[in-house]
Amino acid sequence: MRKLNVLILGMDGYLGWSLAMHLALHGHKVSGLDNYSRRKNVKSIGSISAIPIQSMKKRLEKFQKIHKEHLSFYQGNIVNYNFLKNVVKKVKPHSIVHLAEQPSAPFSMIDRKHAVETQYNNVIGNLNVLYSMKEIVPNCHLVKLGTLGEYGQPNVEIPEGFFNIKYKGRKDRLPFPRQPGSFYHLSKVHDSSNILFACRVWDLCSTDIMQGVVYGTRTNEMIDDSLMTRFDFDEAFGTVINRYCSQAVIGHPLTPYGKGRQKRGFIDLVDSIQCLTIAIEKPAKKGEYRVLNQLDDVYGVSELANYVVKCGKKLGLNIKIKSLKNPRVEKEDHFFKVDHKELRKLGFKPTRKIVDTIDLMLKDLLKYKKRIHGKKNVILPKTNWR
Amino acid sequence: MRKLNVLILGMDGYLGWSLAMHLALHGHKVSGLDNYSRRKNVKSIGSISAIPIQSMKKRLEKFQKIHKEHLSFYQGNIVNYNFLKNVVKKVKPHSIVHLAEQPSAPFSMIDRKHAVETQYNNVIGNLNVLYSMKEIVPNCHLVKLGTLGEYGQPNVEIPEGFFNIKYKGRKDRLPFPRQPGSFYHLSKVHDSSNILFACRVWDLCSTDIMQGVVYGTRTNEMIDDSLMTRFDFDEAFGTVINRYCSQAVIGHPLTPYGKGRQKRGFIDLVDSIQCLTIAIEKPAKKGEYRVLNQLDDVYGVSELANYVVKCGKKLGLNIKIKSLKNPRVEKEDHFFKVDHKELRKLGFKPTRKIVDTIDLMLKDLLKYKKRIHGKKNVILPKTNWR
Repeated sequence: MRKLNVLILGMDGYLGWSLAMHLALHGHKVSGLDNYSRRKNVKSIGSISAIPIQSMKKRLEKFQKIHKEHLSFYQGNIVNYNFLKNVVKKVKPHSIVHLAEQPSAPFSMIDRKHAVETQYNNVIGNLNVLYSMKEIVPNCHLVKLGTLGEYGQPNVEIPEGFFNIKYKGRKDRLPFPRQPGSFYHLSKVHDSSNILFACRVWDLCSTDIMQGVVYGTRTNEMIDDSLMTRFDFDEAFGTVINRYCSQAVIGHPLTPYGKGRQKRGFIDLVDSIQCLTIAIEKPAKKGEYRVLNQLDDVYGVSELANYVVKCGKKLGLNIKIKSLKNPRVEKEDHFFKVDHKELRKLGFKPTRKIVDTIDLMLKDLLKYKKRIHGKKNVILPKTNWR
Repeated sequence: MRKLNVLILGMDGYLGWSLAMHLALHGHKVSGLDNYSRRKNVKSIGSISAIPIQSMKKRLEKFQKIHKEHLSFYQGNIVNYNFLKNVVKKVKPHSIVHLAEQPSAPFSMIDRKHAVETQYNNVIGNLNVLYSMKEIVPNCHLVKLGTLGEYGQPNVEIPEGFFNIKYKGRKDRLPFPRQPGSFYHLSKVHDSSNILFACRVWDLCSTDIMQGVVYGTRTNEMIDDSLMTRFDFDEAFGTVINRYCSQAVIGHPLTPYGKGRQKRGFIDLVDSIQCLTIAIEKPAKKGEYRVLNQLDDVYGVSELANYVVKCGKKLGLNIKIKSLKNPRVEKEDHFFKVDHKELRKLGFKPTRKIVDTIDLMLKDLLKYKKRIHGKKNVILPKTNWR
């Protein structure tokens, strides 16, 4: 495999830090940037990472010391175009992995300020990324993190970005309609539209990842506590399995929303990093806008709660389930089938069973039981979609 | 017809000023706001309105004097939420007509700064409008100006916003896929997605107007020179028929782009105002997101140039046609059929023939031949999509 120059936007995040270490240990030259907005936003809602994480300075030192590899880092905000431009000029990446977005649906629904902040940060930041590619590295491959949530809950199978349709006697291949369910999800749809256009008009190339919900506490590279990635469990930044596991270790009932029959696509953190690596190493073609649906499998949210109960039982945890009124506006009984063959064709092989990962997560989190317990007031939803 | 309280965002623009006068003279109470960005943006590219227009202060005075009706006006930017909120609180509109967007595709394609400014102004401004409705006037009807260009150039008939499809053996009614062709058009698509979501989640109601290209110099209310609306002819803000007519009166060849076989939907200014009035007087239902395709007919851009030549001939103008390399990235030979029954069902009857309007436009513009000639350097495209 050719050594690639990879620039990770949002290197301080859950996926960013995991991916940076993985790529550096798989023969690539890795640079990253971050403005620490995730740390700030989590703090702003009164929460913390369940698993303690080091400052970026410490992370880089420890990684160098333990793994004998170097990661370059630049602190700043991609909404500031001069900053971004200078980093891109310096790094000259073969691949930009764009993870530098406000990633929480509930956070975007808190109020007008948070909705505007989310769409401003995500849409303008992404526009800047596209312009920096056009102006400095027109052959660079953009790997952009979107979300499976961009598609919403249609009553037909979800293809990978595009579908062939027949309508009133004529045929076309069209972008599959998006029906996003929050101002955050909407921002990702706006980004997707902007990227598709830039690829078409400027001949840029991009892979737009429609990713399922990620779960897990660690990757193989996290062989020391100082190298752990963040782990959020609050209502805004904690995704459903991560939140359930955190509830489980502090003896709090698991709280599926509504009927709990909502289905989502899911993927293990380790497998998410595997997929991102594949997308980077097997880029889209010049001018191509490629969409990959990145998930391992589809589960209902109550079904997942049952898995956590079962895994917890083996560890001696007595876990209850208590449904909450759904704060979101979404279908609770719905069809959900997602085509996700492309990544498999490119070589993706899921490596984990969900119950094994949940088991590992519970063990990891039990060490930080006290830490999570101290912040248990941030777990239950306060933000209502209406 | 019940007297409605209508708030026009962007009342100083081509449509805004025309609509304000029309509504006030048709029994409604009209308020408006504007930040004069259209005047500033046109000036920034070195251009002017071909037809002289008065300051807002003068416009209001003259309208009052001539038509004996009052229009309220507030100067400010809807991106400033406090300003918008205070106006909405004061006016308590039954209907908000949102025309306060950066409306030029070429302007949005000049460079990064203009792309960002366009999406920032349009997306954040529109988000603010949605929040102001949610917080202050949840039963207000939003009439939002989108564009037919949101759909792009699909190879199937374009429905009004949504279509019923069968895909892999299952059925759904889905938003029709959008394929916008500039950062401006993209901003309108982002808005549409945000509005659809707000209607679904907050039970707001909105009519999203997918409008064709508007042409014309005047409406019936413009019975005095001081009441004329602006008329742009530059490469950015001048739409195709308006630009052709301006070229015609100064003896400049008409300049269709590329093969000239690009098809667009068009509507006369008078009929556009008729349609907007219908949308206001027959609002969408609570919680409804209604899409109306607002056009009279579809024409090819070279076909229109031929109409202008023909009309000009009767006025003694000897007009040439000279195609230019297309600065846009678009299909030049394509299928284009647009469903536009809904406005007809609501009562819309086109009142003008396109050749009659072109004739009137040429006569109106001949008076300002010198004025247009002095700015002829802004007519030809300098902005390239690539």
